[in-house]
Amino acid sequence: MNPDDVSKAFVEHYYSTFDSNRSALANLYQEGSMLTFEGQKIQGSPNIVAKLTSLPFQQCKHHITTVDCQPSGPSGGMLVFVSGNLQISGEQHALKFSQVGQDGVEYELNGY
Amino acid sequence: MNPDDVSKAFVEHYYSTFDSNRSALANLYQEGSMLTFEGQKIQGSPNIVAKLTSLPFQQCKHHITTVDCQPSGPSGGMLVFVSGNLQISGEQHALKFSQVGQDGVEYELNGY
Repeated sequence: MNPDDVSKAFVEHYYSTFDSNRSALANLYQEGSMLTFEGQKIQGSPNIVAKLTSLPFQQCKHHITTVDCQPSGPSGGMLVFVSGNLQISGEQHALKFSQVGQDGVEYELNGY
Repeated sequence: MNPDDVSKAFVEHYYSTFDSNRSALANLYQEGSMLTFEGQKIQGSPNIVAKLTSLPFQQCKHHITTVDCQPSGPSGGMLVFVSGNLQISGEQHALKFSQVGQDGVEYELNGY
């Protein structure tokens, strides 16, 4: 698989996990991971998952519009940039979101 | 200056340069820099600046809504995530944009 395909497969896995079983996202973060969520910095897989599972909605569905990836850093990492819409159960209008991830190290989430 | 202030100062400098003298952005990219622009990957400062100066508008003004930054990589780098609006001269409505930058290595631009 080329890097673009790997990135797309990861993005699909990440958001289908988010939409179906948010607590399972724990496996996709590490101790050194950092999430910035609407300006708030959250460090480490357990804290990140606690934040994501405490968001004020239960059922949701991410619709991905774009996935861009680039090589990142000397050790063969990837930087992935995602944009799309988030449909929350019971809400009429979808929210736009964008998110950046860097494999295994940091995730930054913004724009809900 | 703390990392958040450094990031904000850089973002201000980047977009005021973009809005006033796009070709001077050359100083803010390196040979190894990569720009992904609406899915197209462009490598190296001269190619990146050629792309940015050939965009189909002359005067524009970026209005920044959010700047988030995180430590990135082992050597003290930063990952910066920006969102905002782009007002193009002669256009009635502003465009939403978001952009990710990683200091000295890659820049990713998306969402115009």
